[in-house]
Amino acid sequence: MISAKAYAAFDPTSPLGPFSLERREVGEHDVLIDIKYCGVCHSDLHQVRNEWGGAMYPLVPGHEIVGVVSKVGSAVKKFKEGDLAGVGCFVDSCRECHSCKEGLEQYCEVQNVGTYNSFERDGKTITYGGYSSQIVVDENYTLKVPENLDLARTAPLLCAGITTYSPIMQWKIGEGHRVGIVGLGGLGHMAVKIAAAKGADVTVLSTSPNKKQDALDLGAHNFAVTKDEATLKQLRNSFDFIIDTVSAPHDYNLYLSMLKRDGTMILLGAPPEPSTVAGFSLIARRKRLAGSMIGGIPETQEMLDFCAEHNIMSDIELIKMEDINEAYERMLRSDVKYRFVIDMASLK
Amino acid sequence: MISAKAYAAFDPTSPLGPFSLERREVGEHDVLIDIKYCGVCHSDLHQVRNEWGGAMYPLVPGHEIVGVVSKVGSAVKKFKEGDLAGVGCFVDSCRECHSCKEGLEQYCEVQNVGTYNSFERDGKTITYGGYSSQIVVDENYTLKVPENLDLARTAPLLCAGITTYSPIMQWKIGEGHRVGIVGLGGLGHMAVKIAAAKGADVTVLSTSPNKKQDALDLGAHNFAVTKDEATLKQLRNSFDFIIDTVSAPHDYNLYLSMLKRDGTMILLGAPPEPSTVAGFSLIARRKRLAGSMIGGIPETQEMLDFCAEHNIMSDIELIKMEDINEAYERMLRSDVKYRFVIDMASLK
Repeated sequence: MISAKAYAAFDPTSPLGPFSLERREVGEHDVLIDIKYCGVCHSDLHQVRNEWGGAMYPLVPGHEIVGVVSKVGSAVKKFKEGDLAGVGCFVDSCRECHSCKEGLEQYCEVQNVGTYNSFERDGKTITYGGYSSQIVVDENYTLKVPENLDLARTAPLLCAGITTYSPIMQWKIGEGHRVGIVGLGGLGHMAVKIAAAKGADVTVLSTSPNKKQDALDLGAHNFAVTKDEATLKQLRNSFDFIIDTVSAPHDYNLYLSMLKRDGTMILLGAPPEPSTVAGFSLIARRKRLAGSMIGGIPETQEMLDFCAEHNIMSDIELIKMEDINEAYERMLRSDVKYRFVIDMASLK
Repeated sequence: MISAKAYAAFDPTSPLGPFSLERREVGEHDVLIDIKYCGVCHSDLHQVRNEWGGAMYPLVPGHEIVGVVSKVGSAVKKFKEGDLAGVGCFVDSCRECHSCKEGLEQYCEVQNVGTYNSFERDGKTITYGGYSSQIVVDENYTLKVPENLDLARTAPLLCAGITTYSPIMQWKIGEGHRVGIVGLGGLGHMAVKIAAAKGADVTVLSTSPNKKQDALDLGAHNFAVTKDEATLKQLRNSFDFIIDTVSAPHDYNLYLSMLKRDGTMILLGAPPEPSTVAGFSLIARRKRLAGSMIGGIPETQEMLDFCAEHNIMSDIELIKMEDINEAYERMLRSDVKYRFVIDMASLK
């Protein structure tokens, strides 16, 4: 077994603290990654605090992992020692269902293996995430990370990047489309960058007028305050797509009213309580409300390559491992532009 | 002006009764239709009782109209005296917006002219519907009615038929698809017939076990009672599409759970209160909730021709004009298989 340092949550309410764990020996299809950086996703906090239920403590979060391959199994083809590598939200899946065979492992019909707080396919080994010095992952669930990007700023692409890239590809969002982005956090700021790089006309929809300059700096073409009646009237029936990254409860009908005929609103966040939808909001101009969840391995690789080509990275604030508890508190106040990333060199 | 007999509502609560009205003279693009049959849509009742607001009394309902052309304007090309003709939910639209130009007049960006309880494009002339002896309509908003179908059973195609045909076409529902139909009323029974004729595998989803034989008789391949836990479990992730024709409040999440990955649930009815949707119902397998509303003139003609080719008609109960108030009460109890149609010969 391989000893690794980590930070873990030990119960739903105490601060995270140091933890030691063992990674499995490198199997023939495995790569050992020395983790350099790990992004901090809001879902880390949900799971640490057991807000979704099912937390298994000690719980080591982290699913926006980038690092350097330090050992490869005998049958590994994609990687060699010294390569950059990334790991996202899952580290395995059934490999046999139609979703897995289509490269849509995020929708594995059996149940994919989450990068943390999940069971390996053996049904008993608990997975530990990227707030850790090392991780061992099957090469088929490991991504090649482009060499030309800043590595720390690449980490959040593994979750925030692919979560926004996937629906943009699925719905073929690009040139000639007016796209609204709701929420300017970790997901939203990536949605702005990727949609703009795809050629769409991007408007950030926000309740805070003071986010305007930030939105424009990120590459949005327009900014609209969705509390202003005159603006709301102007926005009616004006977007081809709205990408909704908000996971706090909010009114879908308001945004549906901004879609053109045949327009689609795509949900990426899942509010804890169901939201209300008026049938007429969808029927009157045959609009659509759709969902999307992260992305599969082939599409995640495609996204990384696309970001490398277009020089797209996350805007981040680099933190030390020991500052994670404060970072969580700041994340709760939306006090981050736009993603915390842990410098794993700080994990002593 | 042309005098016509009719039945009208005079206020939201009294029974409908006889009424005389005047139709405009036949303009150069108009046809005069002697109405033979008019279907009774649930929305007639909503509007008669002012449940959607905006009722203008006397109100003559009816937008499932078939009859015989008895006079044509000088510039009319599509029709000649003696032709069968039909009129659906609208009799005009702005003709200039992109929706009108695409033949999607039901989504006219200005406001189409409803067949009844609406204003003509002059903004002041109130429209009166098909519970009447005659109607004058622009030929561009009049449908050619196939000669080989039973005329009375054809009337409901003008609303119930096109409302179900349009989403089936938009979403390309057909061979290889498993389709669930929710609600077995006027819309639902047409959805079963049309989806089956398109080659889909059709399952009627119902809370009433006693509708099974009816569903199978209409052409459904399967029937499932959505109250039975074992059945619900079996139906999880099993449909490519669900067509939801119910306009009473109900739980969308239950039906969303029955969709496969990438499946679409299409709303045709609009419950008076918004329904709740859990974001996760859509996100977990990137499902879609969509709306659709009647259909445009070109597609309505296509639907009539399709029905003629496949011998598809509504299952109806023919009533006399004077029985309309009783028919409304029975409709409220869902005591009709599946559409009341008024025999206009009874309007003395």
